[in-house]
Amino acid sequence: MPIEWTGSGPELLLNVDRNRPEPLRDQLERALRESIRAGRLSTGERLPSSRALARDLGISRGLVTECYAQLQAEGYLVTQGGSATRVAATAQVSSVGLPPSPPTEPVRIDFRPGIPDLSSFPREQWSRALRRACREAPSDLLGSLDPYGDPTLREVLAAYLRRVRGAAADPGHTVVCAGYAQGLHLVLRALMDGGVRTVAFEDPGDPDQRAIAEMLGLGVVGVPVDEGGVDVEALAATDARAVVLTPTHQSPTGVLLAPDRRQALIAWATTRNATVIEDDYDAEFRYDRAPVGALQGLAPHQVALVGSVSKSLAPALRLGWILSPPHLAAAVAHYKQLLDRGSPVIDQLALADLLESGHYDRHLRHMRQRYAARRTALVEAMRRYAPDVELSGLAAGFHTVARLPTGTGEAADPAEQAVIAAGRQRSVGLYGMSAYLFGSRRGPAQLVLGFGNLTPAAIAEGVETVADLLQPR
Amino acid sequence: MPIEWTGSGPELLLNVDRNRPEPLRDQLERALRESIRAGRLSTGERLPSSRALARDLGISRGLVTECYAQLQAEGYLVTQGGSATRVAATAQVSSVGLPPSPPTEPVRIDFRPGIPDLSSFPREQWSRALRRACREAPSDLLGSLDPYGDPTLREVLAAYLRRVRGAAADPGHTVVCAGYAQGLHLVLRALMDGGVRTVAFEDPGDPDQRAIAEMLGLGVVGVPVDEGGVDVEALAATDARAVVLTPTHQSPTGVLLAPDRRQALIAWATTRNATVIEDDYDAEFRYDRAPVGALQGLAPHQVALVGSVSKSLAPALRLGWILSPPHLAAAVAHYKQLLDRGSPVIDQLALADLLESGHYDRHLRHMRQRYAARRTALVEAMRRYAPDVELSGLAAGFHTVARLPTGTGEAADPAEQAVIAAGRQRSVGLYGMSAYLFGSRRGPAQLVLGFGNLTPAAIAEGVETVADLLQPR
Repeated sequence: MPIEWTGSGPELLLNVDRNRPEPLRDQLERALRESIRAGRLSTGERLPSSRALARDLGISRGLVTECYAQLQAEGYLVTQGGSATRVAATAQVSSVGLPPSPPTEPVRIDFRPGIPDLSSFPREQWSRALRRACREAPSDLLGSLDPYGDPTLREVLAAYLRRVRGAAADPGHTVVCAGYAQGLHLVLRALMDGGVRTVAFEDPGDPDQRAIAEMLGLGVVGVPVDEGGVDVEALAATDARAVVLTPTHQSPTGVLLAPDRRQALIAWATTRNATVIEDDYDAEFRYDRAPVGALQGLAPHQVALVGSVSKSLAPALRLGWILSPPHLAAAVAHYKQLLDRGSPVIDQLALADLLESGHYDRHLRHMRQRYAARRTALVEAMRRYAPDVELSGLAAGFHTVARLPTGTGEAADPAEQAVIAAGRQRSVGLYGMSAYLFGSRRGPAQLVLGFGNLTPAAIAEGVETVADLLQPR
Repeated sequence: MPIEWTGSGPELLLNVDRNRPEPLRDQLERALRESIRAGRLSTGERLPSSRALARDLGISRGLVTECYAQLQAEGYLVTQGGSATRVAATAQVSSVGLPPSPPTEPVRIDFRPGIPDLSSFPREQWSRALRRACREAPSDLLGSLDPYGDPTLREVLAAYLRRVRGAAADPGHTVVCAGYAQGLHLVLRALMDGGVRTVAFEDPGDPDQRAIAEMLGLGVVGVPVDEGGVDVEALAATDARAVVLTPTHQSPTGVLLAPDRRQALIAWATTRNATVIEDDYDAEFRYDRAPVGALQGLAPHQVALVGSVSKSLAPALRLGWILSPPHLAAAVAHYKQLLDRGSPVIDQLALADLLESGHYDRHLRHMRQRYAARRTALVEAMRRYAPDVELSGLAAGFHTVARLPTGTGEAADPAEQAVIAAGRQRSVGLYGMSAYLFGSRRGPAQLVLGFGNLTPAAIAEGVETVADLLQPR
């Protein structure tokens, strides 16, 4: 039964309905709150007496009184010394609108790097593992969070990383985290406590990672990468006491850190009392040889390995791990505790289940074949449609670097931007190397092409669609 | 077939076995890596020739060569100019032991505050919601994370918070986060960008929250709480431009922020251009009246509401939300992106499902009855076994403050500590108010007793067990 009344302000429409499942009192309260908030009842406005409103609405006076008392407790209404109930001065709210939604880009074939094959996510196995975790987790585990992570997962994970990544993994120094970004954040925080003020990053490298260090107030320096990986002499010339590296498959160039560089790097870390943060992101998918073992296995006191399931299962799971140098583990876990108390327990138990049952290994084997086929599709499409384009970094993972034979002497960025923009017009998502370079540095015009989440047919079609853009004019 | 060889170092036992499912090459690689790491093969030590080792192990020479090449690539071995293969100088690792495990405290009946009834976690419903999310989530959602959170969850959550918490919730300014700690962190980071340097906290209040502000380098001040909630005049006398509050059920005292204080607080925030961070932690469970609506509903431009499922479902899920003031929403989402990219998508979809299906409401109604019964059990046990103890803060939630009638004029802390230590000896977990006080402040001797995760029988037994400690001597 809607009623209207006219006070000093505009007409008010209050709508309460006995046929709705919501109790009448809740309906009235909500209607009044919303009217006040929206300004239909304005500041200082006098409300009808509880008797009058009860009569108009055909409900009990007690109900209206309770409702007024509730809204008074919440600060919407005021009653001063037995006088009438009025709308409180602070209760008015200017309108709160939605921000404009971002423009949608109609990308049909997207070579965005870093996205695994999402259609292969093992939904049924993950769902079953979650169900088992939900059913079998002891109640205590649902309440108390271990900032290091669930002990079962840490045991299983350490065994897996010893076996598959050649890591020196110890569950006591393993910390479960919400993916790589958080893992990096945690290790950097722990290093800051030890006096680290500057962090080196590979150049080219992922700009999002530098942003995390900058957020923490750290100085950031770039160290050039060549065919042998990061230039350790250039690193030693900086004042950095920490470096973030992708030694087994440099991101984005795809090179492998050379054996002598590995030795030099560890010597540097030992002499300088510095720490290497190893971003172990896609080494499982290697095509030319067995996966190269993690650097961490060689120097667990100097290297913090950070890994995640973002490439092996899906980014949306937000599960990762840190193999911390022993002396940093407590600090890493301390900051995990401050950041979010610990990672979700049921997800952790499900991952432990997947690892222990062997489903994780089988999934990786299956994906290696699948990515190998996509890699072949890309190489063949390029050979066919754009034979002058040179591909590199294809020994592992699911992205490649395509050098554009611009031959125009142009600086990289404009040439890349032109190709990217033209690709977007044809609904193909392309990504340039320039985004990975430090500061104002310029390199040859290159694209970084991800092929993990595209079928062989889509890869061929995508390459064909943009081939003329990639070839010399 | 285990073999031994004696080099310049100690005897080496290499164990490879054709009957194990692991390929021979992997076995050999792992055995060598572990021997080097453990120091059984020491720096500079010369390895047998590939021919000799192959013969001893009864495996092909090519396999040994591959294995040596792999370990050279990983930095464990060096071969200089065609000479013998040796252990690299940096490959030695001193032992990496487990940290000592924390001493186990045999607490049988634990009155730890803040833990909901873990045995009531709706395992079956949560499991079903997860399964549906696993099966039905579009593949795209598994790869691209929205730092604001899943749009469906934000819609459903905003509708829920409008309906149940009287909030002015807008999905466009809602950010999903990993529970309260992260929510607070995100809002504080966003406020720092706006120049906030000092944050006020309720005194007494949760010390873990102050630690988050301190980690971020913020100044922290305490503002006293009395029967009407936080003292707004005292707040206005500080230079804080942000305050963290528990207006609907002060943690830990349990008082409700008085209506005039609500008005004064919002006036302060408006005048000072300050922000209130509302910790909306257990208001759903109110016993004396309908749940008091969130302060945020009254002043959505001045208040950031942070809530989570930690009290309503379980802390282990790590899911929460921020209703941000419109001008801060983009910064909050930006920092969410830097901190962990976004919350786990499947968990978010499961929560949306639980909210939409009405299971969440039904669960809360069920829990309200359950907590009411536990609250009654505590009140009755106290009346029976320790009638001189005064309880307060029982209008909502699942903890209470018990004032100890020490009557000895002692400072709070020693009296509390004595009771807590004596309780621990009887396997009862008790917690003191002193831990919630700022700095060196002293208050009356009080315990903060959580009863959410204890059955009525355990509550009665716990109170009986420690009753003599609580009474005047």
